[in-house]
Amino acid sequence: MFDPVEKLKEFIRQPSVSTDPKAGAGMKGAQEFMSGLLGSIGFKVEVAKTDMHPLILASRDGDKSWPHVLIYGHYDVQPADPLNLWKTPAFEPTIVGNRIYGRGAADNKGPLMTIIAAVAQLLEDNPKLPLRITFLIEGEEEMGSPSFPKFLEQYSSRLKEADFVFLCDTALPNETQVVITAGLRGLALLDVVVTGPKGDLHSGLHGGVLRNPIQALAEIIATLHTLDGRVNVPGFYDDVLDVHPWEREELKKLGAKEEDYKKFLGIDEFYPTPGFTPFESLRFQPTLEFNGIGGGYQGEGTKTVIPSKAFAKISCRLVPNQQPDKIKKLVMDAIRARTPKGVTVEFVDQHKGEPYVVVPPGRSNTPKDQSPVLAKAFRATEQAVTEVWGRPPLFLREGGSVPIIAEIKRVTGLDSVMMGLFLPEDNLHAPNESFNLDVMKKGTETVRRMLLGLAKS
Amino acid sequence: MFDPVEKLKEFIRQPSVSTDPKAGAGMKGAQEFMSGLLGSIGFKVEVAKTDMHPLILASRDGDKSWPHVLIYGHYDVQPADPLNLWKTPAFEPTIVGNRIYGRGAADNKGPLMTIIAAVAQLLEDNPKLPLRITFLIEGEEEMGSPSFPKFLEQYSSRLKEADFVFLCDTALPNETQVVITAGLRGLALLDVVVTGPKGDLHSGLHGGVLRNPIQALAEIIATLHTLDGRVNVPGFYDDVLDVHPWEREELKKLGAKEEDYKKFLGIDEFYPTPGFTPFESLRFQPTLEFNGIGGGYQGEGTKTVIPSKAFAKISCRLVPNQQPDKIKKLVMDAIRARTPKGVTVEFVDQHKGEPYVVVPPGRSNTPKDQSPVLAKAFRATEQAVTEVWGRPPLFLREGGSVPIIAEIKRVTGLDSVMMGLFLPEDNLHAPNESFNLDVMKKGTETVRRMLLGLAKS
Repeated sequence: MFDPVEKLKEFIRQPSVSTDPKAGAGMKGAQEFMSGLLGSIGFKVEVAKTDMHPLILASRDGDKSWPHVLIYGHYDVQPADPLNLWKTPAFEPTIVGNRIYGRGAADNKGPLMTIIAAVAQLLEDNPKLPLRITFLIEGEEEMGSPSFPKFLEQYSSRLKEADFVFLCDTALPNETQVVITAGLRGLALLDVVVTGPKGDLHSGLHGGVLRNPIQALAEIIATLHTLDGRVNVPGFYDDVLDVHPWEREELKKLGAKEEDYKKFLGIDEFYPTPGFTPFESLRFQPTLEFNGIGGGYQGEGTKTVIPSKAFAKISCRLVPNQQPDKIKKLVMDAIRARTPKGVTVEFVDQHKGEPYVVVPPGRSNTPKDQSPVLAKAFRATEQAVTEVWGRPPLFLREGGSVPIIAEIKRVTGLDSVMMGLFLPEDNLHAPNESFNLDVMKKGTETVRRMLLGLAKS
Repeated sequence: MFDPVEKLKEFIRQPSVSTDPKAGAGMKGAQEFMSGLLGSIGFKVEVAKTDMHPLILASRDGDKSWPHVLIYGHYDVQPADPLNLWKTPAFEPTIVGNRIYGRGAADNKGPLMTIIAAVAQLLEDNPKLPLRITFLIEGEEEMGSPSFPKFLEQYSSRLKEADFVFLCDTALPNETQVVITAGLRGLALLDVVVTGPKGDLHSGLHGGVLRNPIQALAEIIATLHTLDGRVNVPGFYDDVLDVHPWEREELKKLGAKEEDYKKFLGIDEFYPTPGFTPFESLRFQPTLEFNGIGGGYQGEGTKTVIPSKAFAKISCRLVPNQQPDKIKKLVMDAIRARTPKGVTVEFVDQHKGEPYVVVPPGRSNTPKDQSPVLAKAFRATEQAVTEVWGRPPLFLREGGSVPIIAEIKRVTGLDSVMMGLFLPEDNLHAPNESFNLDVMKKGTETVRRMLLGLAKS
């Protein structure tokens, strides 16, 4: 059995930023490291080429009567900038106390290594375990998995042999309470680019005669929310599903405190969707956010220019049953209708993902035709969590997105059991990302017991 | 007599970007080149140290009864970014047709070289000319001349020996019509920084509970103009001086066509101050412009982050008698009052400059106590322009700013005769800046005749 923390360090050292065209070596390094590791614990490894970053398929075959789990993870990470805000180098894993720091430590390298450690231990102890396992590890999650749909179509007959998907790429609310994610928000992303004059202009020689594209962009952005915090795009909320009563009850059990959350965020006032608590808004309501804005001179000092262009990066988080393409169209239509005279707008289409929801067994809205192996997997997870963490997990929808989960469901019909492993303080997608090594240890034991419980008939 | 075009090339090759802390060598190179050139045509050169970039003082002394002109220029230039939009290297002067391309070609290296060439020719032909000349060439114009006020105070008794200031750092409307600038807009610049959460956040895990600083900044910016294009800051227009009838008449003589100007700018609609034509708005009305905006992720693709901060760079162009400090306070007060809950604002104070106005002799509002040498200088300029260009100059206020002109007036009492030499198509402060070599030639002859006319009693 290998040392999971040492292996995680090796994994983090590969700067696998999938959206960065210059990070080819890091992407290749991470993929080869992961392929090698899975081979070393007895899996048959296959690297599936795509137009961009390859996927890894690694399988432990067995009798068709054995349960078959498809384990999902990703070996790519978010960009590390702004680099100057990192206290330790982003791609040099550093352990401080019970935490390991580095880009990707929590999203998704640490949680993925947790599962692999559990599988390795399980198979070492039980070489003849009646359980089929397939790892499916992609390299494009942080760029919206552009190659994944094509891969799914090509491999669908093989993937359909599995009974369900298991992954750890969602959040824990705190160190003592495990959450099984029962739903994910979808995504619809686009850039809006506003063009005014055909070139940058001197603000003295030409200032006062034309509409500045920065001003026009700000005017557009300012219309996209109502004063009380709803997204102000006609039709935006039309398809939003109501929340089931058991979901609200489950959320209450979390016992999260608004004051603590404010303090964590460093804000003095929430701005949730009206009619929802901040915690409900986060999990049950869609958003329209601005991830970036730019235009003109941004350096120190001043440059008295009227820029030709200004842009903003927009992302909508969607809830069931909103459709990404429909939402993109509504947002673009609203922006076009509100673009002031004297400037033009264009859009850059970015990626998207459908929202997803799965209902655990025994709830009022559990589908009558739910697969018995899926139901068993939920129960085995519930039991393993209760044994290792001392309390049962909560089943909750969460605010984040793993767009391929809905895509897998659409193409293969497989649902997913998502066990949260990263904590709010892990700084995902931000400087000083880290992963809690105590959580890693307990997570490994939980996954080991869950898979063992699933294999036992 | 040196070759002015070759000397201009040497001058442009020095990347003298005063706002760039890394451009020390270029600043020093430009200063030493200019000092050497003035020494070579017989001037006594002195380099006056400041806290940042030194000033050059170069003088030709003479009898106290001779007229004394103080010639102003600057050896620093704007930053050259975005570099990728330059068709020729920004600091490698390139002649295409009758134009020389390079950062600073028009602002202010070309026009300054025009004056120096005229002076060199004049003194070569008339070694005993009864005219005192002092060059005052600074290196901080493009950063707002921070050291200039202190320099003025220290050297005021010496500078007061001059009768007036002459400079070529303003615009020509086209190649056939010279404009003598009778007024300049002032400047009030500041950055606004909006802070939301204490760190960057994952837009899935935290999106929908807090106000995004990009959104808050856009909401603030969108309030700063009315729908019809006035600056929406209480008190902003309180001190604006009315325009004199002769100024409107003079402007009409320009014969500028709105359709041509739209085409030049590349816009389909103007956005002037209500009640003013675009040309009047530009010269007679103040502005509030956005020179830059930034926040969050600006690279290719996407990064689903809620940024901690977003900022905008604001510049106001002021007209007589607006006060920069008062305007800055009004703008900051308006922004503070309109900052939404959940975010905070801070300001970074940038530079400023007072607006300026000078009335040529013989107008309805010419001061009764106008200096006779100033009046003579205006008339000599008018005559030289009429001879060389075939039509008299127009006396117009312009939209740009040369903040030190008002500062010189305040400290020394000296007014300025400003002869425009750069054209709209010269791309000042933008990529592919250039200077028209035909204008340079005619400008040289004009300045030579003007100084000769002034010297003759």
